[in-house]
Amino acid sequence: VTLDLVLIGFGNVARRFVRLLAELGPRLTYDHDIQTRVVGIATRRLGCVFDANGLDAVGRADFVESGSPLGPAARSTIGFLRASLERMSASARGGRLVVVETTTLDIVGGRPAVDHVRAALAGGAHVVTANKGPAAFAYRGLAAAASRANRLFLFESAVMDGVPIFNLQRAALPAATITGFEGVVNSTTNYILTAVEQGETFEGALAAMQRAGIAEADASLDLDGWDAAAKTAALANVLFDAGLTPHEIEREPVTAAAGPRILAARAVGRRLKLVASAERTGGAVRGRVRLAELPEANLLAQLEGQQNALVLHTDVLGDIAIVQRGSGLTQTAYGLVSDLVTIGREVRRSRTRAIPRPRPQARRGRTQATRDRR
Amino acid sequence: VTLDLVLIGFGNVARRFVRLLAELGPRLTYDHDIQTRVVGIATRRLGCVFDANGLDAVGRADFVESGSPLGPAARSTIGFLRASLERMSASARGGRLVVVETTTLDIVGGRPAVDHVRAALAGGAHVVTANKGPAAFAYRGLAAAASRANRLFLFESAVMDGVPIFNLQRAALPAATITGFEGVVNSTTNYILTAVEQGETFEGALAAMQRAGIAEADASLDLDGWDAAAKTAALANVLFDAGLTPHEIEREPVTAAAGPRILAARAVGRRLKLVASAERTGGAVRGRVRLAELPEANLLAQLEGQQNALVLHTDVLGDIAIVQRGSGLTQTAYGLVSDLVTIGREVRRSRTRAIPRPRPQARRGRTQATRDRR
Repeated sequence: VTLDLVLIGFGNVARRFVRLLAELGPRLTYDHDIQTRVVGIATRRLGCVFDANGLDAVGRADFVESGSPLGPAARSTIGFLRASLERMSASARGGRLVVVETTTLDIVGGRPAVDHVRAALAGGAHVVTANKGPAAFAYRGLAAAASRANRLFLFESAVMDGVPIFNLQRAALPAATITGFEGVVNSTTNYILTAVEQGETFEGALAAMQRAGIAEADASLDLDGWDAAAKTAALANVLFDAGLTPHEIEREPVTAAAGPRILAARAVGRRLKLVASAERTGGAVRGRVRLAELPEANLLAQLEGQQNALVLHTDVLGDIAIVQRGSGLTQTAYGLVSDLVTIGREVRRSRTRAIPRPRPQARRGRTQATRDRR
Repeated sequence: VTLDLVLIGFGNVARRFVRLLAELGPRLTYDHDIQTRVVGIATRRLGCVFDANGLDAVGRADFVESGSPLGPAARSTIGFLRASLERMSASARGGRLVVVETTTLDIVGGRPAVDHVRAALAGGAHVVTANKGPAAFAYRGLAAAASRANRLFLFESAVMDGVPIFNLQRAALPAATITGFEGVVNSTTNYILTAVEQGETFEGALAAMQRAGIAEADASLDLDGWDAAAKTAALANVLFDAGLTPHEIEREPVTAAAGPRILAARAVGRRLKLVASAERTGGAVRGRVRLAELPEANLLAQLEGQQNALVLHTDVLGDIAIVQRGSGLTQTAYGLVSDLVTIGREVRRSRTRAIPRPRPQARRGRTQATRDRR
């Protein structure tokens, strides 16, 4: 299977992704029969580039990092995306077109990422995104659109980088009901909280994260709890169909005022953590992001630096936890790759299907033969 | 899909399994389109029973627990299994027959569980087992036999009960290479180690586990490290094709002599744990089960009582850990159910396949129509 990729966003994550694709290429080919070809790249500030025959994406990453623009600016990323979908319509009909969405989270309404996903599905592409916005703001609608289009909408890297959470539930926890969860899912604040425990100042720890490129220059999404709230909404929406947005998650910010609390907790053998949680009680779901003083024996209390963890409460399995020890761009990029593998599997399966699907209205340019090959 | 089940072994795990199947029945039907019917049950000491039209398995579980035998003794469980496969050959040809193997671990050579698995696959059945023996002693051969027969050989519950480990790797960690692991995977010894830390005697803690039905009357498989060694071999065989048997795993037993070590470690803020590990270095795999003094901050050091955990070392994702907070019969039985769901999915998929498979030699009694329906 050759998957054609249109990249919307070409920041750190997307550039690490194209390099990881090159590194893992032989493994993807031999173990999973997947080849990939980047046909389009759209950015907001560095222009756009499209070539239906495939681009040298790694070369373009080097190019961008040397400070050059990709190409002429498009009027909008959504306009570029729609044009690309049109030009790749044969690939889209064959289920081989994938839009890889890596724009940054917009906390007002998840735009334009939600629009990118919707347009991609409408154009017959699968969607893989590292952005929390679409699942956090519009999961139900987008999942329904994907189902109608018979395409996949995947976002493993939106929470805990490439550590399988959504894949875990979908593929490995059948017939178990998840009733709630709690976790530490924001690396920036956890790094700051543990650094302050060790005697650093709040501001010093934040600056170190920013120098390392882990926290944004504007770290307010992390510090105000919005990043964790978006992840909480995405998890609750997917794991138990909560239908929440980040704005409905209770939220406590992490400020320099937490310093004395951190040290006071430490003095009595407890640790202050930013805990994201949600639980289903009766018909209602309550989601929260709060600073909690946890006893040292708590698994979440033991997370140092950028480590993340999620504890899932289930009915038949009891509690299970998944812990991420290392976090970074490679892990996030891997999450995108693992979603591509899921898509590759699905394409292979659908090619070997006998039962005819309900035929959509005939579209121009499709012969009986191409229709049957779907 | 209706799956026909032949149960080999009808001890605590199998009896909890048939009750859990009944409890989860609606969920399996509505969410996964799976119905199940137990057609045969074989035990070594309580006789056997077979009915191609389906048995009241929960009633039989009650019956056995009241001290009654199931039926006449078979000459051997393998003989009963072969006869059942013969009688259910139409179901087997349709890919709807599943042998659920829950006999106990034999540490000499994994018998007769390995034979049960081999016979089941040869008879066209899928196999689900909670027994570590087959994957620990004969994974390569059995996986190859399953592949040739186009049937599944699954054993999620063999390690950490129903917590997804093998499913996690297969379905959710594509294109990542696991280079090693370390874990606490034996509940009996971990319970004893933590109880001794809290002032209990070694013998008292063991007796408590036996009273609770968690440790066997003969707990030597646990205490001598054989259970952990079998799990280590199974994990290494599946996660990185090690081709080991439990006899090739270095093994340290847990004896009353560990008591002073436990307390001495505790006094300096460390905890003694029975750690199972394996790593791939170059072409060689080294597997070990040893008592290790771990610093308190180590995730494995923090496991209390019957908690288990496994840390996987991967190339692209770094270290990830999966932690089981609650363990017991229901969790083990759930592992069997989750494997059934995997089989149900596969049956549905293969029913909708277009590409004709290579035709085996025609078998008696099969019409063109049934062949096409495969």
